[in-house]
Amino acid sequence: MEKISKIVFIGAGNVATNLAIALHNKGVSILQVVSRTIESARELALKVNADFCDNFSEISQDADLYIISVNDDAIFELSEKLNLKRKNIVHTSGSLDISVLCNISDSYGVFYPLQTFSKEELISFTAIPICIEANNLFLHNQLIELAKKISENVRIINSEERKVLHISAVFACNYSSYMYLISSDILKDKGLSFDLLKPLIQRTAEKIKSIEPAQAITGPAKRNDIETIKKHLAYLDNLPELKRVYKVLSDSIIVYFKKQKNNVKL
Amino acid sequence: MEKISKIVFIGAGNVATNLAIALHNKGVSILQVVSRTIESARELALKVNADFCDNFSEISQDADLYIISVNDDAIFELSEKLNLKRKNIVHTSGSLDISVLCNISDSYGVFYPLQTFSKEELISFTAIPICIEANNLFLHNQLIELAKKISENVRIINSEERKVLHISAVFACNYSSYMYLISSDILKDKGLSFDLLKPLIQRTAEKIKSIEPAQAITGPAKRNDIETIKKHLAYLDNLPELKRVYKVLSDSIIVYFKKQKNNVKL
Repeated sequence: MEKISKIVFIGAGNVATNLAIALHNKGVSILQVVSRTIESARELALKVNADFCDNFSEISQDADLYIISVNDDAIFELSEKLNLKRKNIVHTSGSLDISVLCNISDSYGVFYPLQTFSKEELISFTAIPICIEANNLFLHNQLIELAKKISENVRIINSEERKVLHISAVFACNYSSYMYLISSDILKDKGLSFDLLKPLIQRTAEKIKSIEPAQAITGPAKRNDIETIKKHLAYLDNLPELKRVYKVLSDSIIVYFKKQKNNVKL
Repeated sequence: MEKISKIVFIGAGNVATNLAIALHNKGVSILQVVSRTIESARELALKVNADFCDNFSEISQDADLYIISVNDDAIFELSEKLNLKRKNIVHTSGSLDISVLCNISDSYGVFYPLQTFSKEELISFTAIPICIEANNLFLHNQLIELAKKISENVRIINSEERKVLHISAVFACNYSSYMYLISSDILKDKGLSFDLLKPLIQRTAEKIKSIEPAQAITGPAKRNDIETIKKHLAYLDNLPELKRVYKVLSDSIIVYFKKQKNNVKL
């Protein structure tokens, strides 16, 4: 089996930056970075010793794989501009079906690293699940080989499963981040430092490594401690949007554990 | 100033267990553990080389400090049973005012470690904020000295501030745990492993150490990506309780960042 050794990146955002650098560090050659903004193309290209351009007509034809890592909306626009028939192409999106690439090439797949990335803080891929899907066995095997170069957690995940993963990741990542934001705002409102909560936040996430999520939950709603909940809601009267979130989540937790007690599916 | 060197614990739950062991390990003598259930009193007492009992009339009169670490409701019952006039007493609760102890003694305070604890997994106190309050300067200074033995993060926090901390901790800890639980249930529903999300959860919490909460949030609601949100809601049709939470939080995030853009207080 021929291995993938030369890659073109289309997109230069948070995912592309982390992924391109991780592959480059494992000896994979990044030929070119293509982006709508020449500055971000240049920025990433310099880090991985690649060419760069902002014009899709100048895209290199020499790569073994084209990794499209752009916003979901932009992929649909790309499919009109890109001519990569017979090339191997993948996207890196959690929510898009594999089939969105079928107009760009005959050999396509998905290379989805399940993690939150930022350009500013590069992180190790070793433990990150990389979810692989392909429309043909040849590419499928090549993508697995490639993913294994950077991660010990390579998974075969189809588009339907990936969608479910993405929805659950919205809760686990985006919504838990929003909880941090709310807690920070409540403290700020009284001149208290968010630093006070940081050890608690770290520990709460760490707990989940060894304790089942249902067992890990503590607090007034889990205990059905109506008096404390009432006091908290009264305090939040001057922060109505946060009060609404508090109310919905405390209600939801109470209902959840009542149903669990009665063995009812949520 | 006389230092606190002999302590009686009233209560033997998660907080009492972690705190008693941490103090014991720093050479503080735990004289006695008092609990309504003799088994839990014995269990903790054995770990810290203390006496134990389940009868409040047998409480030792020789301690420098009595740490009451029981459920909030139980403290009110205790104030009728306990006779510790002229003794130093503290509670460890985030939500109760310092004044709930005023019927038990003349010298009282709060020793509140801001963390989530479990008996099964003992954790280091070094980074944990310990929030101190006292009704007299002598006890105030003694409590600070004691807290510094186990933590490098000792804070003077009054009852009103502590209440605010506790409400914000409900979001940062209880509600983020609930987000983990929901994500786990969504995966389970399709036979997918929660392990897939663990690296994401760890990273999301870690991000908050160096990135402002408002900057750390990503995802469809933050991007105001209505199409993806609609798809996710449609998927959650068969999990109505989780759908309701998804809807409220995505709406709330969208409103939050719109207001932030327009510089309106939430």
